[in-house]
Amino acid sequence: MERVYARDLRSHVGEEIRIAGWMHNVRRLGKFAFLLLRDVSGIAQVIVDSQDDLKLLNQLQDESVLGIEGTVVAEKNAPGGFELHKPRIELLSRVEVVAPFTINKAVLNANLDTFLDNAAFGLRHPLKQATFRLSAALMKAFRDHLSKNGFTEITSPKIVESATESGANVFKLDYFGRNAYLAQSPQFYKQIMVGVFERVYEVGPVFRAEPHSTSRHLNEYISLDVELGFVQDHTTVMNLLGELIHSMMAYLRQQCSHELSLLEVKMPQMPEKFPSIYFPDAQKLILERHGEDCQNEPDLTPQHERWLAEWALETFNSDFLFVTGYPMSKRPFYTHPNPADPAYANGFDLLFRGVELVTGGQRLHRYEDYVRALRDRNLPLEPFEGYLQAFRFGMPPHGGFAIGLERFLMQLLGTQNLRETTLFPRDMNRLSP
Amino acid sequence: MERVYARDLRSHVGEEIRIAGWMHNVRRLGKFAFLLLRDVSGIAQVIVDSQDDLKLLNQLQDESVLGIEGTVVAEKNAPGGFELHKPRIELLSRVEVVAPFTINKAVLNANLDTFLDNAAFGLRHPLKQATFRLSAALMKAFRDHLSKNGFTEITSPKIVESATESGANVFKLDYFGRNAYLAQSPQFYKQIMVGVFERVYEVGPVFRAEPHSTSRHLNEYISLDVELGFVQDHTTVMNLLGELIHSMMAYLRQQCSHELSLLEVKMPQMPEKFPSIYFPDAQKLILERHGEDCQNEPDLTPQHERWLAEWALETFNSDFLFVTGYPMSKRPFYTHPNPADPAYANGFDLLFRGVELVTGGQRLHRYEDYVRALRDRNLPLEPFEGYLQAFRFGMPPHGGFAIGLERFLMQLLGTQNLRETTLFPRDMNRLSP
Repeated sequence: MERVYARDLRSHVGEEIRIAGWMHNVRRLGKFAFLLLRDVSGIAQVIVDSQDDLKLLNQLQDESVLGIEGTVVAEKNAPGGFELHKPRIELLSRVEVVAPFTINKAVLNANLDTFLDNAAFGLRHPLKQATFRLSAALMKAFRDHLSKNGFTEITSPKIVESATESGANVFKLDYFGRNAYLAQSPQFYKQIMVGVFERVYEVGPVFRAEPHSTSRHLNEYISLDVELGFVQDHTTVMNLLGELIHSMMAYLRQQCSHELSLLEVKMPQMPEKFPSIYFPDAQKLILERHGEDCQNEPDLTPQHERWLAEWALETFNSDFLFVTGYPMSKRPFYTHPNPADPAYANGFDLLFRGVELVTGGQRLHRYEDYVRALRDRNLPLEPFEGYLQAFRFGMPPHGGFAIGLERFLMQLLGTQNLRETTLFPRDMNRLSP
Repeated sequence: MERVYARDLRSHVGEEIRIAGWMHNVRRLGKFAFLLLRDVSGIAQVIVDSQDDLKLLNQLQDESVLGIEGTVVAEKNAPGGFELHKPRIELLSRVEVVAPFTINKAVLNANLDTFLDNAAFGLRHPLKQATFRLSAALMKAFRDHLSKNGFTEITSPKIVESATESGANVFKLDYFGRNAYLAQSPQFYKQIMVGVFERVYEVGPVFRAEPHSTSRHLNEYISLDVELGFVQDHTTVMNLLGELIHSMMAYLRQQCSHELSLLEVKMPQMPEKFPSIYFPDAQKLILERHGEDCQNEPDLTPQHERWLAEWALETFNSDFLFVTGYPMSKRPFYTHPNPADPAYANGFDLLFRGVELVTGGQRLHRYEDYVRALRDRNLPLEPFEGYLQAFRFGMPPHGGFAIGLERFLMQLLGTQNLRETTLFPRDMNRLSP
């Protein structure tokens, strides 16, 4: 008998059908029981009234896997308005252990460590399902928007020869007796590929050996990377990013209304064009509004970012704010300076609800500029040769950005910890499951 | 002035436009020159006839990046039928070095090592562009088919705690002073996630520390992973895989005709349902047709696979052949045995043109079966705890498979080496670019 999903009972009233899924909950009322069976589509109620079946249920713990044949009946008090009568229950997988916490209540009550230790079980909670469906939807919406705009997907190696991009915080690997490293980003490869496809993107893991454990950092995460050629400057990149985020949010609204409502997601406020502030002006603003003089600092603190976000929300009704023109001293060697103000970068961070979500900007594109930038930082040329070849052989003005997938989702949901929006997080203390 | 792509000149006859791209080739004819400018869309011809421009061109090597404004003229002898007259040339990026090989001829003449050493340059050749566009298209078609069939995309960690899945051939990592490993596959995670979403897929890198260098193995590649619950047995998985491959090929035919024709791709012969042979029968067939008795062997050699492929093409007009029922002794611990013949697996390999492209099958789904399988192999339970929890808490009968992206493309194109279908391959001797 063909299996029917829980959400589709309504199309089979009066018919004999088969449903299958997990024993989500059983309410026992003496001579009969309400069995809730959960499948990927939702929850179906089954009226169990035979002695044998009631005895079977008494021997099973929640999450046992069952296949159930029965007749669909309309019943306005059942979840969804339909239920299964006269069930014939097949036990597919028996559960005998007791759960570390419950996943059949509307709220998930487990502290984060307990939850993560029991992820294989806990991720089944409908709220967690909804969370990671949104994660999948964000990836799909990202790819869809870029594909439609002439971008080609690439896949770059994660094992690399040199710890070159920023020097610190890379994981070291034994590669057949020599050292190799895990890529901190696909930066060099996506730039190389602009020379091939002009516009490229990659969705893949990146690895950061940052030796600290905060709610906003993980040692492995999914980076949504974009790079495009023939830009005017970083503003071309910012325009693309703004359109991309609008498009991703529109996709969620259209395709994920159930998940957004279940998770009570407050969708972001955002004008068609995101507001933008130049780094030195941001520092002035902080002095004016909050009395804190950070004008000699090369970077913004998390508190500064929150203050700027408040200002952007008040002034532009926007949960997003670009900060442009960070000092060159804090940006990586491939950063293109502002030609009119060369101590500052043609780059940006995008703040989302007060947290840095995206870093991006224009890159250098002339070989001689790379040689100079590396020399200025006392970096050797040799480990960069395969990368620099792209510039020896002609590269257009280009730029790009990277969005942290799990962080985007964290800020969207308003959760407090990246580990809540990562399926199996990796930090200094956690390597499993 | 808005940039126009090379392929779109036809829509702008008589207009002043701007094109931009790489100096693909210059044919100098005394008082004028034919300049071919390559962009992501194709090649545009420009008639250069001013003394200053001709002088400029003489100072430039191919691959210099130019922006060119001029008037579009219909000219039947120009590539595509249109060309640009009265150009004003802007030099965006100057190339002064001489290329290691040419990329402006129809054929790419470079030996593989020279090509790979110069990938940032060589990948610009139109044949390589077409190759990696097909790679992107295969990923898209894979995701599209699965999304339409109720699968959810997941992302699993690549840094893992134990070298558990097969024991050997894992890369070891220094993880904040302790050992960690690079995941050989998302196997455990995709199974766990069947407990959450029933049907899942992942596209991501996998890492194999195999200490040999062959044309058919790399140490890092992209795995297209699928896992689904509530299967009858491995045949449910095989049916899905057959439909998926049909769908992927249909997508290429519809969306990539230019690339398929440029690369002279011979699309596979395949009946609606792929033929299948049981492992012991395959060994008998080899004995009958080729006189080689391999009936005591637990596996097939590459020669055996080629013979079976010949037979499948002759008999079923199919470039694909399932071999089912490999001996359990050669399959991993999570493999589900054939209930009627427990020395053989409810699993399969899919051969494509004589090469193993996919491995898959039904998995164990009961906790006690895992305990027994691990004990039988003298493996400890403890490192598997986070994974085994999924089975303690009820898992449906399930199965899945993994397709090697680069290998799929290699067999589709009929190339001889995986390195030709991998952007930046990793092997024992190659870690860069």
